Amino acid sequence: MRDVAIIGAGETKYGEHWDKSLRDLAVEAGLKAIEDANIYAEDIQAIFGGNMSAGSFVGQDHVGALIADFAGLAETQVPAIRVEAACASGAAALHAGYLAVASGMYDIVLVGGVEKMTDLPGDMVTDILAGAADREWEVFLGATFPALGAMMARRYMHEFGLTIEQLSLLPVIAHKHGTMNPDAHFQREVTVDQVINAPMVADPLTIMHCSPVSDGGAAVVLAPTDIARKYTDSPVKILASTVANDYISLHSRPSLVESPSTIAAGKKAYEMAKKEPKDIDVMEIHDAFSIIALEGLEDLGFAKKGEGIKLAEEGQLYYDGDMPYNVSGGLKAKGHPVGATGVGQVVEIVKQLRNEAGKRQVPDARVGLAHNVGGTMTTSIIHILEVM
Amino acid sequence: MRDVAIIGAGETKYGEHWDKSLRDLAVEAGLKAIEDANIYAEDIQAIFGGNMSAGSFVGQDHVGALIADFAGLAETQVPAIRVEAACASGAAALHAGYLAVASGMYDIVLVGGVEKMTDLPGDMVTDILAGAADREWEVFLGATFPALGAMMARRYMHEFGLTIEQLSLLPVIAHKHGTMNPDAHFQREVTVDQVINAPMVADPLTIMHCSPVSDGGAAVVLAPTDIARKYTDSPVKILASTVANDYISLHSRPSLVESPSTIAAGKKAYEMAKKEPKDIDVMEIHDAFSIIALEGLEDLGFAKKGEGIKLAEEGQLYYDGDMPYNVSGGLKAKGHPVGATGVGQVVEIVKQLRNEAGKRQVPDARVGLAHNVGGTMTTSIIHILEVM
Repeated sequence: MRDVAIIGAGETKYGEHWDKSLRDLAVEAGLKAIEDANIYAEDIQAIFGGNMSAGSFVGQDHVGALIADFAGLAETQVPAIRVEAACASGAAALHAGYLAVASGMYDIVLVGGVEKMTDLPGDMVTDILAGAADREWEVFLGATFPALGAMMARRYMHEFGLTIEQLSLLPVIAHKHGTMNPDAHFQREVTVDQVINAPMVADPLTIMHCSPVSDGGAAVVLAPTDIARKYTDSPVKILASTVANDYISLHSRPSLVESPSTIAAGKKAYEMAKKEPKDIDVMEIHDAFSIIALEGLEDLGFAKKGEGIKLAEEGQLYYDGDMPYNVSGGLKAKGHPVGATGVGQVVEIVKQLRNEAGKRQVPDARVGLAHNVGGTMTTSIIHILEVM
Repeated sequence: MRDVAIIGAGETKYGEHWDKSLRDLAVEAGLKAIEDANIYAEDIQAIFGGNMSAGSFVGQDHVGALIADFAGLAETQVPAIRVEAACASGAAALHAGYLAVASGMYDIVLVGGVEKMTDLPGDMVTDILAGAADREWEVFLGATFPALGAMMARRYMHEFGLTIEQLSLLPVIAHKHGTMNPDAHFQREVTVDQVINAPMVADPLTIMHCSPVSDGGAAVVLAPTDIARKYTDSPVKILASTVANDYISLHSRPSLVESPSTIAAGKKAYEMAKKEPKDIDVMEIHDAFSIIALEGLEDLGFAKKGEGIKLAEEGQLYYDGDMPYNVSGGLKAKGHPVGATGVGQVVEIVKQLRNEAGKRQVPDARVGLAHNVGGTMTTSIIHILEVM
């Protein structure tokens, strides 16, 4: 298995892009990554595009082909396919692209992620996102996707005495970081009071415990490590790329307070990377809902079960703390264009490891971890990266 | 790059499965492939599932996770992701699964394809399928997907003097083969007159030049060739797995009578397999519309441009002819559950190469080719297989 590096990374601003379509966002991100990699578009040998629901959001499937065409690559007949794993579609595309380079069949591979979500009214968006859960056994029975997140939060609060004030620290941290990321959807600080008193979405989660509906695209360029330095002085090696799944429905699971998929993907990733949680200098943790991030932090070994919120209370999760978390703003403040998110997390890690993250730069970051989740922690995908 | 073999294959009957849902079809096909491979479900290390539009057809995304769960594999945290390339989603999933095993990261990989299309009225199905074309630049301007196929046919008839009687030979052959496949959606013969006088869909294509709306699932199990014989006496080696793309819109293309993506994927596949068209004993060619199959036959080198229909006129394409074509019934008669089709084509080739195809068995078939197309020949994916 060949070692694989990221030689270029780019993304659009996340937010409400009324003037841009799905293809515009994908191409903008892709071209930024291509430019960053110092390659020509024609050098690309395959494209793997992460996207959750363009078919439902904008009536467009066949998204890989669309992107290849509008990136100007139809003439080269470049292979292009789409990968989907709900909100983990971006990381799933990266996993597929990683395997493509690792296999030896392709050298230069573009991995993109994109979602155009704001063309529909909110109730339709919520319904489409519920397709990440079990439509027949959860959604038809009345659950929205935030309602499922709320059940996870309620159970966690019951088992460990977590208060809503404590849980609200996570969006406060994310929004603080968002102020330092010019590409973030939201770039203003919020207080615990504002989080708690925001409109209720699904008790106990207010809208400020939930990631927003965002448009955006992100892309990275992969190459075998042995030729990566031909293109860039600071390639970032993919030490691990792992995927794990759980029951799709909450009601099938023995516990709502830990995620077997995150535990399994994390364990395999640490083994593959020969790293431990203490080796991680910067991390992007999936915070579609604050509770998912809290469980993720624990299930990845950054805190004991039931004690993750202490990291927030002690200030360790800030960009200048000991365990910098969601320095990009996370899904909460940077935004959550679902198909783009997993790739965008990796774009952030790449910027951090290359010391190009500006105001929010984590000092001396050499190893980073990205944790991307599909559904209610049904799919978990982990990437561990190290600057070469 | 490790060599990869298919060690098991299975599929559901294709047709109108009013009593089965998406997950039922996926699991039925998967379990048949697992049983055929003589493995336990727990042996599976990763799942790649092809599906075009479950989000639109049945409101369900996150299809990989759903299948893993209902196949009983949630306990093993098996990685499971979905792959999409419109009607080539099945072959795209096989390509991703092939790379996964070739890379060395996974040994035993399940590749599935599934689509549940009949839960919606026909006009909605037609609209969803149009998501394989360019929604903004073709569909919003009035084109249905069959209308695009009709334009290809009209142009071909104009350039080469093809008659509708000639084109109608292809569905006649497909339906003849369908009578010998107990899993085919349609198992009755049709005549040229019946094809021509069937209800018009998009002039010159009648409904009998168009593949039907079908439900179905198909699956294969992959393993490295060096351990394949541990599981089966007749592994089938994947000699080539190639993908190529073209402009998504017909209006962007220099020609409507040949497909650069099929030409490119075919050329690469023949090189990779070290085979030529004359070495192919049995082939499944994508006949979503008859014109696509005709162009495919030519672009893959089985006939000169403009002369492909002679193969039909001379009887060479029948199962007992020199160039057995769509012996399964093809998309036209076997059916076209879009996400399943590409995997189902490979299931047919595997059966043929293992001499298990019953009445429709092609004598002495050792090398087979499957040609799966997304959109209007936008994505072309070729697999060449040889019995080991």
